[in-house]
Amino acid sequence: MAELTHMIDSEVFLAFSTYATVVVLKMMLMSPMTAYFRFTRKCFANMEDTGMAKTPEDKKRMLRVDPDVERVRRCHQNDLENIIPFVVIGLLYTLTGPDLSTALLHFRVFVGSRLFHTVAYVLPLPQPSRGLAWMVGMGATFSMAYRVLSSTHL
Amino acid sequence: MAELTHMIDSEVFLAFSTYATVVVLKMMLMSPMTAYFRFTRKCFANMEDTGMAKTPEDKKRMLRVDPDVERVRRCHQNDLENIIPFVVIGLLYTLTGPDLSTALLHFRVFVGSRLFHTVAYVLPLPQPSRGLAWMVGMGATFSMAYRVLSSTHL
Amino acid sequence: MAELTHMIDSEVFLAFSTYATVVVLKMMLMSPMTAYFRFTRKCFANMEDTGMAKTPEDKKRMLRVDPDVERVRRCHQNDLENIIPFVVIGLLYTLTGPDLSTALLHFRVFVGSRLFHTVAYVLPLPQPSRGLAWMVGMGATFSMAYRVLSSTHL
Repeated sequence: MAELTHMIDSEVFLAFSTYATVVVLKMMLMSPMTAYFRFTRKCFANMEDTGMAKTPEDKKRMLRVDPDVERVRRCHQNDLENIIPFVVIGLLYTLTGPDLSTALLHFRVFVGSRLFHTVAYVLPLPQPSRGLAWMVGMGATFSMAYRVLSSTHL
Repeated sequence: MAELTHMIDSEVFLAFSTYATVVVLKMMLMSPMTAYFRFTRKCFANMEDTGMAKTPEDKKRMLRVDPDVERVRRCHQNDLENIIPFVVIGLLYTLTGPDLSTALLHFRVFVGSRLFHTVAYVLPLPQPSRGLAWMVGMGATFSMAYRVLSSTHL
Repeated sequence: MAELTHMIDSEVFLAFSTYATVVVLKMMLMSPMTAYFRFTRKCFANMEDTGMAKTPEDKKRMLRVDPDVERVRRCHQNDLENIIPFVVIGLLYTLTGPDLSTALLHFRVFVGSRLFHTVAYVLPLPQPSRGLAWMVGMGATFSMAYRVLSSTHL
């Protein structure tokens, strides 16, 4: 970690910027997907969201839990639990000055595994497809964390 | 993204630091707000939190779901889903060296939309106030992501 | 914040890298812990996860909410709500060029409080141990945020 000031405008940093932005945008798209399922399933969490209902009984009926909405929300939660650690550890990893090819391998494996994870969760695909996608993503992040910790050796 | 080492102590970076810290502090304040509603509504999620109850029956009665507590928790969750992507993409955006005025516009629109979103969620204000606040915040983050992706063009 | 380019390969930054990685890894380990409790309690959220069941009735019975699983998930959620703000504000704090000893104090108090918080939540320990751990962690993050805001003074 000797020459961090030179790392920050390196190709590795540009690659990190791109992959981190892509995977964070993917995570953000779970919000509109939740909204889409809430409107098509007519299933809301807040009374003020049921404006499309005509009668008070209809409004109350829309305050319910729908399995499709919950599935998308669990996928979003799993993204928060996995993509944010990737971004944090990936940034620190980038600053340790790894080889471009090794870094690209980590970034691509992670982003690919999360794209597949979303497909496997939302469709859903039979297990263990979702479980394996989750493990591959965790593995990529752990591998980068190992380099961060062994580079800093406090 | 040629001269990142000069960007990092720029005015844009100082502005990002301030706005990111303010909006993350706002998000953190949802935790004490949840605690406040849990204590005033006497509604807890863990048996060990019901120490204020005198009898075992009172303790069990406090392990319940309260609509006001859930509203604050949903607002907190929405913050996690929106403010963290802003921080990540905003940092990468800052490092692309945007104009100060353009950057300030993005940061202020985002932070303003999230402050209004919290008010609209917790009171609550009638829709579509909360929905619009959420969309404006997403738009600011998407606009910054567009610049990051078009600056790095891998 | 005058000489940020020199800060980034400072000892404070190396310390931040280490502590941030450790505490994010701790947060990530809540996922396998959730999976462990889901498998030992036979309690799942998705129909496709109940492959170990032999009959359709067994599968349905496994789609339930288990108090031990929910406890681990609440601990994970509390980590997301506290550790991610620490990472964001801690990074900005690191770039303000604090004394190494002051920075180490903040990082160690935060990481220690979160490790204790997890123990106190999962066992669980009697209150107010978990509440105090949460407050100490919040305090460390607020203290760093104060320095960020007073260093940037826009």
